[in-house]
Amino acid sequence: MAGAPGPGRRPGQSGTREAILAAARRQFAELGYDRTSLRQVALEAGVDPGLVRHFHGTKQELFVAVVELPIDPATALPALLTGDRDAMGERLATFLLEVIESDPVGSPIISLARAAASEPAAARMVRDLVTTRILAPLTQAIGADDAALRASLLGSQVVGLTFARYVVGIEPLASMPREQVAAAIAPTMQHYLTGPIRTTPAAR
Amino acid sequence: MAGAPGPGRRPGQSGTREAILAAARRQFAELGYDRTSLRQVALEAGVDPGLVRHFHGTKQELFVAVVELPIDPATALPALLTGDRDAMGERLATFLLEVIESDPVGSPIISLARAAASEPAAARMVRDLVTTRILAPLTQAIGADDAALRASLLGSQVVGLTFARYVVGIEPLASMPREQVAAAIAPTMQHYLTGPIRTTPAAR
Repeated sequence: MAGAPGPGRRPGQSGTREAILAAARRQFAELGYDRTSLRQVALEAGVDPGLVRHFHGTKQELFVAVVELPIDPATALPALLTGDRDAMGERLATFLLEVIESDPVGSPIISLARAAASEPAAARMVRDLVTTRILAPLTQAIGADDAALRASLLGSQVVGLTFARYVVGIEPLASMPREQVAAAIAPTMQHYLTGPIRTTPAAR
Repeated sequence: MAGAPGPGRRPGQSGTREAILAAARRQFAELGYDRTSLRQVALEAGVDPGLVRHFHGTKQELFVAVVELPIDPATALPALLTGDRDAMGERLATFLLEVIESDPVGSPIISLARAAASEPAAARMVRDLVTTRILAPLTQAIGADDAALRASLLGSQVVGLTFARYVVGIEPLASMPREQVAAAIAPTMQHYLTGPIRTTPAAR
């Protein structure tokens, strides 16, 4: 919280907005959706709660503003999924871990996972966000007939990894260097992207 | 709630315990760890809150009692992981989905996933439970040098699938018949059980 403005001097509107978003990002990631309140966000940002509602409306709207992804999947994914086909899984795994760990406390992917677990209304909101913002561009980038299934399987592995490594802290996944984790899950990403996806038990 | 006992007649102690556990199981799964309270559990079970504390102590202790797994991983896993080596992934995937869906509302795996997301103290509790009760026997059953890493990767896919299919409801995973989902994730399970797990980027 760098230097609160003295009396008679107000921070610019964009500075206030930024302070609110930063506080909200931290609280949603650390406390989860359920236990984050507009009042506590306002307190941390050093503003009146009315101002939070003025800028961002409801808690749900504030959450949507906060989970702005640091990258736009609609542009990043097609670039990752072109070029050497056999290295797609590795490129995607490496990229995802870099994005998630670029800001561990406030990572929107961790906030999304925690919000989804908190209550059915938040789970629906997360479903809509993830489906339209991440899975739809991913499905389009994959481009196969069964691309939606491939995208949802990929998403399930990413969410599970997020939980195991960052939220619950399951070893050895939690402490391994990022590059090792990326290498370990790359074959799964590759399989979901390009491998044969069966939906019937293997004939034996 | 079958026939509340009339005045002068009390249900047996084991009936009361069962009613408390059933209410707690439902509330932990539906409301999540954070929003479940001993008071509301007592209300649903039709008993005094003091009785809940008498039988089960703290909310954390009640949670541990409730997430009693329907099967004992220490006996089930070794049996699943013997026999035809190439079909291990399919056997494990089929078994897991059957266990989870044998009681969708009260599934302990869903409760564990939701509790882990709610608050750091609950996440630590879930980590200890999952590590000792599920991952340790799984690691032992896998038996390879890198078995702990394989077990945690397997666990991450199972948690992610639980989230995508049951908690968030990502399509098409959420609506697919169980057998199709088992077939779709079986190769991933197989890979984590018996495939080569690299922790260095592939040489190219």
